[in-house]
Amino acid sequence: MHAPPNDIGALIAQVARLPGLGPRSARRAVLHMLRKRALVMEPLARALARVAETARDCRLCGNIGTEDICPICADPRRATGTICVVEDLSDLWAMERGGGYKGRYHVLGGTLSAIEAVGPEDLRIPALVARIEAEEVREVILALNATVEGQTTAHYIADALAPTGVAISALAQGVPMGGELDYLDDGTIAAALSARRRL
Amino acid sequence: MHAPPNDIGALIAQVARLPGLGPRSARRAVLHMLRKRALVMEPLARALARVAETARDCRLCGNIGTEDICPICADPRRATGTICVVEDLSDLWAMERGGGYKGRYHVLGGTLSAIEAVGPEDLRIPALVARIEAEEVREVILALNATVEGQTTAHYIADALAPTGVAISALAQGVPMGGELDYLDDGTIAAALSARRRL
Repeated sequence: MHAPPNDIGALIAQVARLPGLGPRSARRAVLHMLRKRALVMEPLARALARVAETARDCRLCGNIGTEDICPICADPRRATGTICVVEDLSDLWAMERGGGYKGRYHVLGGTLSAIEAVGPEDLRIPALVARIEAEEVREVILALNATVEGQTTAHYIADALAPTGVAISALAQGVPMGGELDYLDDGTIAAALSARRRL
Repeated sequence: MHAPPNDIGALIAQVARLPGLGPRSARRAVLHMLRKRALVMEPLARALARVAETARDCRLCGNIGTEDICPICADPRRATGTICVVEDLSDLWAMERGGGYKGRYHVLGGTLSAIEAVGPEDLRIPALVARIEAEEVREVILALNATVEGQTTAHYIADALAPTGVAISALAQGVPMGGELDYLDDGTIAAALSARRRL
């Protein structure tokens, strides 16, 4: 295979393995970078190398930052009495984009799974229990995905935290903003109905 | 904005600007790399840096390789008497994937465009004319896209090469492999009909 030549072909193969990309989109992306080597490719290479070198898991919450303690845990303006438990970094980012939460986080790194042999100790759950006392936490908000795995994990954590006496809450379930009933699944409509509120 | 933190947020923004990606797919890709920093992120950073540093346009044909002369032009097994003219690197790669072509290429780097002020000298067309004599070329195959711009450029090149007396051909137009007539546009069907061949 002469075209794309070896180094470029290898690069395309690496890009194609990223989630959400495939051979065609990888070729397009690499081609774009080949055309703008100084403007796009070199800065991206530097940014990747820098993040790969400096990124580390926050010792407290599991968020990824560039220090031993992530910017959220290090921020004195973030309330210490509340911990929002999320499955993954992407969920933490989603919560931050929402912008309404001013407390700390705890990133589990996945959900419990008997099939994939993921147990509590794989998910930073013991670390969460330890934080409840160490940080005098008053409320734990379980912001896990509304999937079977997420809800199973939420129940397990609620049980595990029960002895500590901390208040435990979960995100409300219901109709999403802009949601049209006709396009919602039955489960969402049933949940929104049973959790209906008086106006 | 605390999450994603600065370096990671900047990286996501850079990835999101690549063609075919957006904020969401960039976040997914970066998240994947953050989880596999040693296995995915560092090798990709190195591959990008290496290609950005070594990639250069072939002095003869405009293909991108890692040497002054690209692997195709440097390959003695590729016939020298035939030049396949393509708009872009991606078209060269597509021709090579097809696998049937054993001659040399000439990458124009775009199409003529009055609106975008792209003239012949912006497209390596003078270099193509020069190659006809220098390399004793007998046939030029115009493998330009079947778009208005591609065909306009093909006609211009055919006119420009007429004085050299070189044989000029173009890719056949017709029904693509696996194509169903019902899903083809009228232009393709008309072209396939007028170019029908006896069995």
